[in-house]
Amino acid sequence: MATLGLIEYQDASPEVRTIYDDIMLTRKTDWINNFWKALANDPATLKRTWEDIKQIMAPGALNALTKELIYVAVSVTNQCGYCIASHTAAAKNKGMTDGQFRELMAVVGMANESNRLAAGYQVEIDEQFKV
Amino acid sequence: MATLGLIEYQDASPEVRTIYDDIMLTRKTDWINNFWKALANDPATLKRTWEDIKQIMAPGALNALTKELIYVAVSVTNQCGYCIASHTAAAKNKGMTDGQFRELMAVVGMANESNRLAAGYQVEIDEQFKV
Amino acid sequence: MATLGLIEYQDASPEVRTIYDDIMLTRKTDWINNFWKALANDPATLKRTWEDIKQIMAPGALNALTKELIYVAVSVTNQCGYCIASHTAAAKNKGMTDGQFRELMAVVGMANESNRLAAGYQVEIDEQFKV
Amino acid sequence: MATLGLIEYQDASPEVRTIYDDIMLTRKTDWINNFWKALANDPATLKRTWEDIKQIMAPGALNALTKELIYVAVSVTNQCGYCIASHTAAAKNKGMTDGQFRELMAVVGMANESNRLAAGYQVEIDEQFKV
Amino acid sequence: MATLGLIEYQDASPEVRTIYDDIMLTRKTDWINNFWKALANDPATLKRTWEDIKQIMAPGALNALTKELIYVAVSVTNQCGYCIASHTAAAKNKGMTDGQFRELMAVVGMANESNRLAAGYQVEIDEQFKV
Amino acid sequence: MATLGLIEYQDASPEVRTIYDDIMLTRKTDWINNFWKALANDPATLKRTWEDIKQIMAPGALNALTKELIYVAVSVTNQCGYCIASHTAAAKNKGMTDGQFRELMAVVGMANESNRLAAGYQVEIDEQFKV
Repeated sequence: MATLGLIEYQDASPEVRTIYDDIMLTRKTDWINNFWKALANDPATLKRTWEDIKQIMAPGALNALTKELIYVAVSVTNQCGYCIASHTAAAKNKGMTDGQFRELMAVVGMANESNRLAAGYQVEIDEQFKV
Repeated sequence: MATLGLIEYQDASPEVRTIYDDIMLTRKTDWINNFWKALANDPATLKRTWEDIKQIMAPGALNALTKELIYVAVSVTNQCGYCIASHTAAAKNKGMTDGQFRELMAVVGMANESNRLAAGYQVEIDEQFKV
Repeated sequence: MATLGLIEYQDASPEVRTIYDDIMLTRKTDWINNFWKALANDPATLKRTWEDIKQIMAPGALNALTKELIYVAVSVTNQCGYCIASHTAAAKNKGMTDGQFRELMAVVGMANESNRLAAGYQVEIDEQFKV
Repeated sequence: MATLGLIEYQDASPEVRTIYDDIMLTRKTDWINNFWKALANDPATLKRTWEDIKQIMAPGALNALTKELIYVAVSVTNQCGYCIASHTAAAKNKGMTDGQFRELMAVVGMANESNRLAAGYQVEIDEQFKV
Repeated sequence: MATLGLIEYQDASPEVRTIYDDIMLTRKTDWINNFWKALANDPATLKRTWEDIKQIMAPGALNALTKELIYVAVSVTNQCGYCIASHTAAAKNKGMTDGQFRELMAVVGMANESNRLAAGYQVEIDEQFKV
Repeated sequence: MATLGLIEYQDASPEVRTIYDDIMLTRKTDWINNFWKALANDPATLKRTWEDIKQIMAPGALNALTKELIYVAVSVTNQCGYCIASHTAAAKNKGMTDGQFRELMAVVGMANESNRLAAGYQVEIDEQFKV
């Protein structure tokens, strides 16, 4: 169980319910996942995190799916089990195909490998890359 | 300097030169960055890494720019200075706008934050996310 | 199960029992958690780790609770499930309130976010911060 | 140099200047460090990040210094050079003594060590720690 | 369950079966572990990953057991549960004794600790270490 | 410069000099690297860290070079610049050949890649790997 328990909709304060409602409305879904129910123990963090995510993940210069793929890439690199499960599901909801998932994994794996080759060989930054 | 030094084109074996040529041809550029010059101390790793990257980063279900953005996201999460510099430059070469870079950073930052909130609150994976 | 199994008190050597006794005495508790029972497979590591932790976590310039909060912050950043569970429990035992836990999580999340923004924007260290 | 350059006060938009002013006022200082000058390339992220940090780092259930120590602990664990330099300086400004810094480092080192011992020995979470 | 499910031998394409056969032949075993069954959803990644691992993990300047110990050290540092379990088992198959495992863990723990002490104290690289 | 400065031999207390002497004697060298000069600001941590490292890195079930290779593997995975430089130098002093370094890097890179493939594909631990 989550550290401070999960706050279900029926037990939530009006302040928390307002955010739950906005999450479901924005995501066009009828349920709230555990991440938010856990954060609801801290309404200030719930509100700030949701508003930040809502702003950041909205389509802009990058589309919604690309942003979700980036979210998965970070979560996989960090070995965050919950985040991998929830954001892979979110990516599928936003249209990620199996083929896209496969390529995403390949790139994430490769990047994690070459990050260590660059560090281990103590490669210095090329002048051309200095901005 | 890199741990085993950098292998310049004029000092490279024919085997290494062939890979250098393919890198420049594939990337439509006339120089080789330090990462490859360092790996050239191990021709087997140079060859394997280049062939893997060439295969993985080629446009497919995901386009070349999206793949490069994912590469940057991983490199930033891992705090790999060389990789951040080189792949940010690569992303620009592939057309990343400043606006896309800004949104990329925002998503990477947010994902790293929420990864820890999920872990710290010990949130369990929702049944709906179990595949 | 742990890789080498868990060494229960009744099966432990006198050397290991002495450490178990000191752990329970120091922590004012009557049981040993699995971390120590796993380490007991390597009495030298058990002894060294316990003595280090006992020394490091004792109140000094920082009080015991502050040290435990720092321990949780590191464990969450590293996504170590066992460590998050055990050190969150330890922090509660040392008096961490729910309010303190909430703020701890908020800071840990924020720090993980801004760490990546600093890295991704390739921000150079200000002269004023160079010691 | 930072990826998109640094926005100095005299070159900043009124929107950015307002945030710079609030940073200096809140921190009782007369200069802006590079982190914010880099983020200023993305006014939305600058605003969101500053408002989040201002809210999160304000004294509450945890005092300002404890929060800053936690920030340093995360930054050290993540090997973020910029963040270590800037938040160590911030902690000193908030009153961190050399003795507190030494103990902070000792705890951070120990936690990073025991996190790996717990993972490597594949220790299962004790029933007593399950909330 | 794995994200895209697991591909059992009887359900595998001839291309995948050929790799499964090579894995079992190379490892002198009669079963395929879940990692490969998951990767089989992406035959290109399965093939590339297996061929890379086969090449990299073959005895050379370092023997097979030493390479496996290094694999475990990385997996523990990254907190990858699956990888810790599978590569610890692989190391045992290659002859790792309990005594070697204990020392491996001690070194991995120590390195993770001193990595943070070096970063936290902002230690500069000695001239003698610059290559 | 290091956060609290570096303590040179001539400025060190007798307690610190004793440890410096033991480091030089044990390592058969006539100088002290910056890591220890930084830790000397905290004699308790200097003493504990040196004694732990001396015990852990001594040849046992694993030889001294193998232990140093593992240290490098962890340092590279963590992107710790100081640690990569110092432990790569230490490994060379203990006899690491260029060929061994190349294979070490290849394994470290591969492990970091496959760690993410295992996590990203959400692979469950095989029954056979459960101990």
